[in-house]
Amino acid sequence: MHQTVTFGEVLMRLSPLGNKKFMQSNRLEFYFGGTEVNVAISLANFGGKVRHVSSISNDFIGDTAKSYLRKFGVSTSDIARSNRPLGVYFLEVGAVMRPSSISYNRSHSAFSEINPEMVNWEKSLKKCTWFHWTGITPALCEGGYKTLKEGLILAQKKEIEVSVDPTYRSGLWKYGANPKETLSDLLQYCTIFIGGINEMNEILGATYQYSNEDFIEASKQLIKEFPSIKKTFDKIRTPINASWHKIRSRMWNGVEFRETNDLDITHIVDRIGTGDAFAAGLIHGLQNFNDDNKAMEFAAAASALKHTYEGDVNFSTVDEVMNIINGNTSGRFNR
Amino acid sequence: MHQTVTFGEVLMRLSPLGNKKFMQSNRLEFYFGGTEVNVAISLANFGGKVRHVSSISNDFIGDTAKSYLRKFGVSTSDIARSNRPLGVYFLEVGAVMRPSSISYNRSHSAFSEINPEMVNWEKSLKKCTWFHWTGITPALCEGGYKTLKEGLILAQKKEIEVSVDPTYRSGLWKYGANPKETLSDLLQYCTIFIGGINEMNEILGATYQYSNEDFIEASKQLIKEFPSIKKTFDKIRTPINASWHKIRSRMWNGVEFRETNDLDITHIVDRIGTGDAFAAGLIHGLQNFNDDNKAMEFAAAASALKHTYEGDVNFSTVDEVMNIINGNTSGRFNR
Amino acid sequence: MHQTVTFGEVLMRLSPLGNKKFMQSNRLEFYFGGTEVNVAISLANFGGKVRHVSSISNDFIGDTAKSYLRKFGVSTSDIARSNRPLGVYFLEVGAVMRPSSISYNRSHSAFSEINPEMVNWEKSLKKCTWFHWTGITPALCEGGYKTLKEGLILAQKKEIEVSVDPTYRSGLWKYGANPKETLSDLLQYCTIFIGGINEMNEILGATYQYSNEDFIEASKQLIKEFPSIKKTFDKIRTPINASWHKIRSRMWNGVEFRETNDLDITHIVDRIGTGDAFAAGLIHGLQNFNDDNKAMEFAAAASALKHTYEGDVNFSTVDEVMNIINGNTSGRFNR
Amino acid sequence: MHQTVTFGEVLMRLSPLGNKKFMQSNRLEFYFGGTEVNVAISLANFGGKVRHVSSISNDFIGDTAKSYLRKFGVSTSDIARSNRPLGVYFLEVGAVMRPSSISYNRSHSAFSEINPEMVNWEKSLKKCTWFHWTGITPALCEGGYKTLKEGLILAQKKEIEVSVDPTYRSGLWKYGANPKETLSDLLQYCTIFIGGINEMNEILGATYQYSNEDFIEASKQLIKEFPSIKKTFDKIRTPINASWHKIRSRMWNGVEFRETNDLDITHIVDRIGTGDAFAAGLIHGLQNFNDDNKAMEFAAAASALKHTYEGDVNFSTVDEVMNIINGNTSGRFNR
Amino acid sequence: MHQTVTFGEVLMRLSPLGNKKFMQSNRLEFYFGGTEVNVAISLANFGGKVRHVSSISNDFIGDTAKSYLRKFGVSTSDIARSNRPLGVYFLEVGAVMRPSSISYNRSHSAFSEINPEMVNWEKSLKKCTWFHWTGITPALCEGGYKTLKEGLILAQKKEIEVSVDPTYRSGLWKYGANPKETLSDLLQYCTIFIGGINEMNEILGATYQYSNEDFIEASKQLIKEFPSIKKTFDKIRTPINASWHKIRSRMWNGVEFRETNDLDITHIVDRIGTGDAFAAGLIHGLQNFNDDNKAMEFAAAASALKHTYEGDVNFSTVDEVMNIINGNTSGRFNR
Amino acid sequence: MHQTVTFGEVLMRLSPLGNKKFMQSNRLEFYFGGTEVNVAISLANFGGKVRHVSSISNDFIGDTAKSYLRKFGVSTSDIARSNRPLGVYFLEVGAVMRPSSISYNRSHSAFSEINPEMVNWEKSLKKCTWFHWTGITPALCEGGYKTLKEGLILAQKKEIEVSVDPTYRSGLWKYGANPKETLSDLLQYCTIFIGGINEMNEILGATYQYSNEDFIEASKQLIKEFPSIKKTFDKIRTPINASWHKIRSRMWNGVEFRETNDLDITHIVDRIGTGDAFAAGLIHGLQNFNDDNKAMEFAAAASALKHTYEGDVNFSTVDEVMNIINGNTSGRFNR
Repeated sequence: MHQTVTFGEVLMRLSPLGNKKFMQSNRLEFYFGGTEVNVAISLANFGGKVRHVSSISNDFIGDTAKSYLRKFGVSTSDIARSNRPLGVYFLEVGAVMRPSSISYNRSHSAFSEINPEMVNWEKSLKKCTWFHWTGITPALCEGGYKTLKEGLILAQKKEIEVSVDPTYRSGLWKYGANPKETLSDLLQYCTIFIGGINEMNEILGATYQYSNEDFIEASKQLIKEFPSIKKTFDKIRTPINASWHKIRSRMWNGVEFRETNDLDITHIVDRIGTGDAFAAGLIHGLQNFNDDNKAMEFAAAASALKHTYEGDVNFSTVDEVMNIINGNTSGRFNR
Repeated sequence: MHQTVTFGEVLMRLSPLGNKKFMQSNRLEFYFGGTEVNVAISLANFGGKVRHVSSISNDFIGDTAKSYLRKFGVSTSDIARSNRPLGVYFLEVGAVMRPSSISYNRSHSAFSEINPEMVNWEKSLKKCTWFHWTGITPALCEGGYKTLKEGLILAQKKEIEVSVDPTYRSGLWKYGANPKETLSDLLQYCTIFIGGINEMNEILGATYQYSNEDFIEASKQLIKEFPSIKKTFDKIRTPINASWHKIRSRMWNGVEFRETNDLDITHIVDRIGTGDAFAAGLIHGLQNFNDDNKAMEFAAAASALKHTYEGDVNFSTVDEVMNIINGNTSGRFNR
Repeated sequence: MHQTVTFGEVLMRLSPLGNKKFMQSNRLEFYFGGTEVNVAISLANFGGKVRHVSSISNDFIGDTAKSYLRKFGVSTSDIARSNRPLGVYFLEVGAVMRPSSISYNRSHSAFSEINPEMVNWEKSLKKCTWFHWTGITPALCEGGYKTLKEGLILAQKKEIEVSVDPTYRSGLWKYGANPKETLSDLLQYCTIFIGGINEMNEILGATYQYSNEDFIEASKQLIKEFPSIKKTFDKIRTPINASWHKIRSRMWNGVEFRETNDLDITHIVDRIGTGDAFAAGLIHGLQNFNDDNKAMEFAAAASALKHTYEGDVNFSTVDEVMNIINGNTSGRFNR
Repeated sequence: MHQTVTFGEVLMRLSPLGNKKFMQSNRLEFYFGGTEVNVAISLANFGGKVRHVSSISNDFIGDTAKSYLRKFGVSTSDIARSNRPLGVYFLEVGAVMRPSSISYNRSHSAFSEINPEMVNWEKSLKKCTWFHWTGITPALCEGGYKTLKEGLILAQKKEIEVSVDPTYRSGLWKYGANPKETLSDLLQYCTIFIGGINEMNEILGATYQYSNEDFIEASKQLIKEFPSIKKTFDKIRTPINASWHKIRSRMWNGVEFRETNDLDITHIVDRIGTGDAFAAGLIHGLQNFNDDNKAMEFAAAASALKHTYEGDVNFSTVDEVMNIINGNTSGRFNR
Repeated sequence: MHQTVTFGEVLMRLSPLGNKKFMQSNRLEFYFGGTEVNVAISLANFGGKVRHVSSISNDFIGDTAKSYLRKFGVSTSDIARSNRPLGVYFLEVGAVMRPSSISYNRSHSAFSEINPEMVNWEKSLKKCTWFHWTGITPALCEGGYKTLKEGLILAQKKEIEVSVDPTYRSGLWKYGANPKETLSDLLQYCTIFIGGINEMNEILGATYQYSNEDFIEASKQLIKEFPSIKKTFDKIRTPINASWHKIRSRMWNGVEFRETNDLDITHIVDRIGTGDAFAAGLIHGLQNFNDDNKAMEFAAAASALKHTYEGDVNFSTVDEVMNIINGNTSGRFNR
Repeated sequence: MHQTVTFGEVLMRLSPLGNKKFMQSNRLEFYFGGTEVNVAISLANFGGKVRHVSSISNDFIGDTAKSYLRKFGVSTSDIARSNRPLGVYFLEVGAVMRPSSISYNRSHSAFSEINPEMVNWEKSLKKCTWFHWTGITPALCEGGYKTLKEGLILAQKKEIEVSVDPTYRSGLWKYGANPKETLSDLLQYCTIFIGGINEMNEILGATYQYSNEDFIEASKQLIKEFPSIKKTFDKIRTPINASWHKIRSRMWNGVEFRETNDLDITHIVDRIGTGDAFAAGLIHGLQNFNDDNKAMEFAAAASALKHTYEGDVNFSTVDEVMNIINGNTSGRFNR
């Protein structure tokens, strides 16, 4: 059985109920998330063995975050505690043409002081067969970058599969690092790339300006520059508006290009974490199916299902995702 | 004025708010339902006089169930009390391609020990002009079957109109009875059949395997085998996904076949009880309109409206249903 | 900077959560609204300076209403207090083919005893550059009509721009006044007309029975009879059902006719106050853009956005509305 | 078995959750009440047969009020419907030294237009053995007084027992009637008086100014002036603060004086309707116990129990009240 | 470090919010509990290593129960899954003189079919140093008794400490077993007895009828008859009413008698699980303090603290309980 | 009329409902507070004119905070906006012997970067007659200290009355400043001292170690060292447990010592902000009563009343506080 390690910030999410704005409510719901946490929990819900490495606050909020991960069966024994507070984000959920809005309070969070001394990679990667990280972590702070790099070096040495979702968000890179250089430095340890043309262009640099149609070419160029990478997977979202999206996926595994049909998500419940559900679905598929195309289809269906759950967590099980792949999308009752 | 008697289990429904799973909430909403109860309440909301016969728990949950029926004007004076608990079902509401899930706790409920001694059919059917039952009751327990049969024999003797919604669910038949034989035994007392090809095939047995297009033929064969049955009505649901369905209806009244247009239910609020709303609409129509086609249209519109109410109850009044039949489906304000 | 004065009743809105009926809940949400209040708050949210003139109850409900206006920055210093209760309306929110229902308790409200002695128009209109009223106020009570007329006479004298949304609802006119005569009497002081063919026909009287296609002709006739009116604006709503509408707008400014494209509102959150959002958007646009067509587009986009907020208030800012006009209707995240 | 008729206004109660003020919430809970309604429901919960006579609004709020009474088994078939809205009251619940606050919206309610034509006393009192009214009804409007008087005259003719809780609140008497004269006119038809020294002084008039110790003397004088009255009962509340009260009761039945011990209500949940619970307890006791002292004890215990229920309704059953009388006040679990 | 194993039913608890009755709400809160589960979770909250052995339903309710235990760090890997539903109990929370009421639905639950084949005691007790059981389990079903006995025999063989809380409730013993005999049969394997005079009398049988003052004598007799028992601990509750209790504790450890002072719980939040909190506190104390008196004080303080948490779980940590023992009972802020 | 200026951090408060812990809920309520904000809002509720000076986040959370102040009529036009997030605190509300717990996330908040450039004291103090500050502000950051000092110097120059509540919390002083020196530096500009023996000892330094009985002596010494101070006021809290406190107050105004009786707060709803309510009550009293003793009594009663409101805000009006002073503490209804 595969054992996956994820590494990244745990965030508390706070949002008014339904489509309310903070200004019109005094009630909130809270969840815990963070892109790598979401992947970890989804993998655990697929029945996988998962360990999350992080730093959280040493107060009752941190205790609650820890119990939240434990509830889903994610191991929390490698999570450090910090005197800084847990990172928080505030969310107002939009609808139709109104976008959702997010405001972060994470720049001085418990995770922002992460550093190699706080993580024992030898212990954390002991039985690990798969390591997953995203571009959020090296964007947040230098300690995140350095700690991650140490883990990746060890992972490569131990021939652990490494998947990366580079998720490039320019607004996050505040501590002075150059995104292209930093991501490139870390990409050399990775084997699976989960991202689209934007991320590829950012990493490949100004010489290449691929358009959305150039996926195969861009993938080939990426693999050329980062030869440890074997396969690229991309999720394509076509939003009609904030309440109605279509999702499909494509891949280049060095040998063949494949693409799924659009899945039509007519009544979105919550789209936070749907990219993470895609990554987790893909990791689960690659770990268990020995069929890249089936893994990609599993990822797309898992991502589509996530749109139907409130909160960041993809609750879907393997059977539930397989049902979608098998065309059972009419939503008939399970009794 | 017609007086309708319904007979069947009262169930408590427990579900998290919105599209939440039990695992992500500690708040539930509860309602009371059960397929025959839903028909009874809908008929009462149409202004009809209704009496429900059942057995419920002798605790504060049973008291609450009783007051729930009373609130809608359904007579509860013929409901027996049992030391067993009320049947319960847990519901997680799906969305888009995610199906809703139901888990039952009813096999040893207050209703499961129903038996002919607990019901005084002479009293209950005294002023009754219409008796309605469904296939759930004889599926649950032998006492349900026997008690029902006694009631049906008396109903036939008193020339009471008897409608049946056989709702065949194979998973329910656990006490050893043969569904085909049991339902056939009870169908001989019925005059109105509410069901589709699946139910007809189950009842007619292996010789006949009608397809969905054979509705008229199948109806004729059913009427041939059960000559007390005069008319058959069928509701056809075309799900796009769990949040978006289309509904239409068809009938064979021994003389003519009629079919309604699809009603497009683009944003389903709650689909539990929409079949019961159809049955109640049909019963109300047949009792009051002297026009089978109009009764069928009323049933289809009532069922469509039910999709817009939370919970099991169809709150719609006769005027509100007539509005839909008259084409006022744009949802303009009532002030 | 423009300073707008609005005049009209403040109402408390009470509705069960979601699509529930009063009969199936014991929880309500409340908001404050009223068509002119909604315009005032939306203008304040656009950054405008606004003063609302009214009469509210002299109890903790009135205090709450006042603090509600203050919260959005609307000046409440010209609101009189009355020993009568605040007007209330109860709302059940429909879905799909089920219309929403409203029941009013306003006929003896704090506003129903408004009279010229209770308002100091000299003070209220001192720095005012724009006055907005609707047909609800003269419909409610004679004092409303008389007080309004005094204000309008002074506004005209001070060459204040006056916009009117005549919103003709025949059910409201209960105190004996003739709607056509009363509205005509007040229209002579107005410069901007916000309304459709129904309102124009009602005001022009039985001689004219324009159809929906005659907007330009009807506008010209209206301007002929009320020469102070310079421009007419109309919002056209095409409902598919209670959950899905399309909105577009058209105008005649004495020189040219313009019309926007339909905005498709596929998942309505709350449609109360969307007409008021249109009026506020229009007023903001005319006050700030010096471009009638852009003002109309702003109004249509503002109205569309309002459909995505719970409650009566249009929370959208100028930037958010401009985003829609610029075609950003896919609802991508704001981070 | 006794059949009781109550007559009076049905009010909707709206209050924020817990101890919140309207200004700090947008959520409310609603219940239905009114002093006579509360008596009716409590009697039904004691297993009695009860019929409430009133006038309610002809909208979905009135429907909800009706279903609320029906839920408890109170007959609603003699309730008239009016085009006016249902009366409403707003409540902010205090604590410790902070008093609860109430604001009414009832002066033009559905009940305010009650008149003798709207009530068929012959029908309503047909099987009635007990009639209960309070001083609120003749205080509200002349129609209330006149309708009530007609009912009382018929009740006396039919030798129906008549209990009165005069509940004198000077602020209510707004339509011009003299409280002393009006109450005196109605008291001549009554047999049971439920009230304290304040009410006695108000009714007896300025000649008599009894102090709280003069209960027996005042009772004798009252019975002398209103010889149909046979017994007087008084509930004495000793508030420590808004969260902690003591309750006891005393009586004069023409023969003996009796007084209960204080019941110590250390953690009040909701004190609305505790006076009505006393009246209902007393009526139940007098109807069933043939022991004035036991009836008084039952009334006091019922009133004490009501302080533990949210809302206006006394849910307690006869067994639950008897438990208190038997000294089981330690609140051990019922399993 | 001690490793504790608990064995018993997992129950779902369903209750309306606050002091509401089911009849006045349609909202519930749910928790998971059961007397042995409560002990397990409290021990985990004290930092202990705990494993719970049970049988739960094989549906999403069972999944939720499992995740609930996991959230607190209780190991769930020895919990069997059954096709029967999870046991449920409904709770209405009383106040002052109104008792709380409980209604069970557990007689055919997932746990009711427990039998020795479903538990692998060798595996479950492998690293175990402490086994805790209560009298609920052998009362529920014969399988519970037999399975428990197998575990106890093995525990004794492995010289594991065994604590028992016999909690005698006569209403539970429905399957035909004799409580005295059954409990006596199981008590021979126990070392720590947690119970009062009632339980001692029940177990010792009709010959002995100790009064509450005979604690030492009764303890001595118990130890005489069950020589494996070394110490007895008793929690004494003095209820003023349902909202206000006093708690103290006493012990006989074969050598000395000790008793704590009363802890005054003036505003009870939730008393469910306070006995289990006592047991867990005692077990923690005996495992860690090497001082029977301190263990007893810890147990009493833990039980007192549990009264301040909603739900069945005692959230208190060792530090928080020590604070109470050290006299910090004034509730000053922790910042 | 007095115009008061307050200066300090605006904090968002997040807490689960009732006595829940974060670990057992996913619902929160939020309020805005901060000790100086609480004083400002309470003064506004007493009818005063108040302006709050601060720095808040430039996002929708900051917008919500601003609208929260505006709702109570506190002027927000002197509040700067920052790119840092708003300070947050998390609260778990205890009961009986369980203390409430608070966890802060404020060290890098929008207020933490306050500096003299961000405040225009000339403008803010223009019409100001009273300036209030607390020891929290100079404890938080050097910018807070410096900005405050500039304001105080100007206030003294303009002969504005300056009240200080030094609220010494050693845990807050993290940026290197010496509390005694810093507070002493600021105290020289103050005229009214609100604090107890602890604060006096901290400010006077190690030479003086007054006990609680030495209030007059300590006050004299304080006034001797800080001759601008004219009066000292102290609130004494006697907690029985977290749910039950007693409050009284004492003063030394240079001439006489006075002390109030204890106010017994038997059922605390929320004690956050009760010290601020005392300060606001005192300021209001000193501004309006010309009677130090009455001002102190008003302060004590205001503080007691605050314990009955949820959240940080003291909603009480002058009339409501006067009621308490006049002995109306039995909590009778306001109708």
